[in-house]
Amino acid sequence: MKPIAPVSVHVELGPRSYDISIGSGLLGEAESYRHFLLGRRCMIVSNDVVAPLYAARLASALRSAGVTAQTIVLPDGEDRKNWPTLQTLLDALVEARCDRDTVLLALGGGVTGDVAGFAAACYMRGVAHAQIPTTLLAQVDSSVGGKTGINHVRGKNLIGAFHQPVAVVADIDTLDSLPPREFRAGLAEVIKYGAVADDEFLAWLESHFPSLLVRDKRALVEAVARSCAIKAAVVASDERETGRRAILNFGHTFAHAIETGAGYGSWLHGEAVGCGMVMAGELSVRLGLVKRELTERIDRLVAAAGLPVRPPPISADRFVTLMRSDKKVKANELRFVVLESAGRACVRSVAEDEVAGLIESFTN
Amino acid sequence: MKPIAPVSVHVELGPRSYDISIGSGLLGEAESYRHFLLGRRCMIVSNDVVAPLYAARLASALRSAGVTAQTIVLPDGEDRKNWPTLQTLLDALVEARCDRDTVLLALGGGVTGDVAGFAAACYMRGVAHAQIPTTLLAQVDSSVGGKTGINHVRGKNLIGAFHQPVAVVADIDTLDSLPPREFRAGLAEVIKYGAVADDEFLAWLESHFPSLLVRDKRALVEAVARSCAIKAAVVASDERETGRRAILNFGHTFAHAIETGAGYGSWLHGEAVGCGMVMAGELSVRLGLVKRELTERIDRLVAAAGLPVRPPPISADRFVTLMRSDKKVKANELRFVVLESAGRACVRSVAEDEVAGLIESFTN
Repeated sequence: MKPIAPVSVHVELGPRSYDISIGSGLLGEAESYRHFLLGRRCMIVSNDVVAPLYAARLASALRSAGVTAQTIVLPDGEDRKNWPTLQTLLDALVEARCDRDTVLLALGGGVTGDVAGFAAACYMRGVAHAQIPTTLLAQVDSSVGGKTGINHVRGKNLIGAFHQPVAVVADIDTLDSLPPREFRAGLAEVIKYGAVADDEFLAWLESHFPSLLVRDKRALVEAVARSCAIKAAVVASDERETGRRAILNFGHTFAHAIETGAGYGSWLHGEAVGCGMVMAGELSVRLGLVKRELTERIDRLVAAAGLPVRPPPISADRFVTLMRSDKKVKANELRFVVLESAGRACVRSVAEDEVAGLIESFTN
Repeated sequence: MKPIAPVSVHVELGPRSYDISIGSGLLGEAESYRHFLLGRRCMIVSNDVVAPLYAARLASALRSAGVTAQTIVLPDGEDRKNWPTLQTLLDALVEARCDRDTVLLALGGGVTGDVAGFAAACYMRGVAHAQIPTTLLAQVDSSVGGKTGINHVRGKNLIGAFHQPVAVVADIDTLDSLPPREFRAGLAEVIKYGAVADDEFLAWLESHFPSLLVRDKRALVEAVARSCAIKAAVVASDERETGRRAILNFGHTFAHAIETGAGYGSWLHGEAVGCGMVMAGELSVRLGLVKRELTERIDRLVAAAGLPVRPPPISADRFVTLMRSDKKVKANELRFVVLESAGRACVRSVAEDEVAGLIESFTN
């Protein structure tokens, strides 16, 4: 059988540009790191689930690349993406006397990447970091684009920074160890890219979904690489989300309300996004922007991924209240990413009673 | 008597450029704010000492400028420039439902400016802030240049961000209420600018020090404006302190060790900088870079400002240990800003035993 060729995706951001490497076996290869780490001191930042699986392999590859690394292990889980965890990490960096030239390597899923990236943004007013995502969600979404942060009890990612990594190394072999529920959650963001930015990719997903569901490595490399390429193009055009980048939040205003309303950690982010995309699709239809045939294609993919298509029992009132505290809200308008056509999305303001009616149609 | 003309200093940082307004009576004038705040929502961030003096006057000027503002009052003091204070402020922003278009107005000294600026850097991954410094130290130094952050028990400003303000409004009338000890501490940074960047300004200070000491407003406007102009030029050439900006840390490696060694809050930052400049001057002489006549000019200004010229009783060993945890240390070298000539400075690595000998000459 032919070996699986690795793919490189460039994120063009001027002086903050970097490459995403996607392939099989990258994590354990010195070549994955030498070009951006040579001679630098590293801190591997991981969590108590991922570190036992991959930290030693990573450290060994780094040694082969001539890089010294220590490891800091944080608690895992969306409910630990908070102040105390950030403080634990920053304290550890101070204790280890990390200097301004230290590079943090975030080894884990979205929570680890967000916390490690934010710590890198804040430590000594900013040190470098690289992302080594080990979940599908992190590989296709959270490791790319420089959004870092922690949750506040009143809302997700309310505290954070834009801080681009110096490199992303996505080894799809690490997905072998991913629990089925987390793998499915990651598919939500993959579907999202097709829905909002690339109709051809949406069609590719429809024909390759069976291969993805059995974690076929060639299919995974292609899905991750195409997702990253879409995200890279959007981020390159609007790094700080003053405009177009907002389309990547398709389904996310609903999703954040679901996550907060259900309690952090009870719904996975990707599960909430899956359901949120179904709701945002329905909103697009109600606004007369697209035909139901399009949103049904998305709904079918969400369902095929085994993701929920209905929200948890949260009253429409509470739902709307939760959405009002979303970061994307401006001056109390409710704003949503909606579909304009297959592979195209935009942002619209919607009256609160219209949104409440939509929510009721899902929860009654 | 002729009115005192306000002065404007431009900080050129491309898309992050802004102006510093320096003058008498600016704080209470709507014109000081209209051009950068019109139609925006503001949060005044102040402290329990400054808010009772100036918050109402500021809020009234903002109302005249058509701007809505609430006020958040934080505890004051270098020992409160920490996690709990930052968290209190961020919680208050969340509670008040501040959105991404909110502007934070830091009204107070360096601690308030640093904490408010860092909160602005982190809240929703970055909102705008303006600085309204009410201490001499903040007017000439900390409000300009975008360095924000909090202290860690193991070192000053270890956690923070570069986040430029959108404007700085320095009303020298607020210096009327400044306690004598804090006023003198602010003079340390003024002397620093002459020492490291502008021999002519150093000479101006020598002839105008009596006027400054009695807080003559014309002299103050000129001293603040010239200090800001020097800082603006240095920051414009090296925003993130990868090179030349480091000269602004003249005396600061010693000062940070003094502040930490003596316990935050027992020495004021400016007092430590005054003493630190005397020590760094002596180091420059010992390295054979400058003649004692030059450093004696600086020593005389520090003494005339009523600032300490000898460090507190910290052993040389402990002093060196404290300096090793300074942010500016790279790979365990001890690096110092030293004088090359009048109005010129550079960074040098110095052997630890040489530094220890220097410290002993001051503390024995």
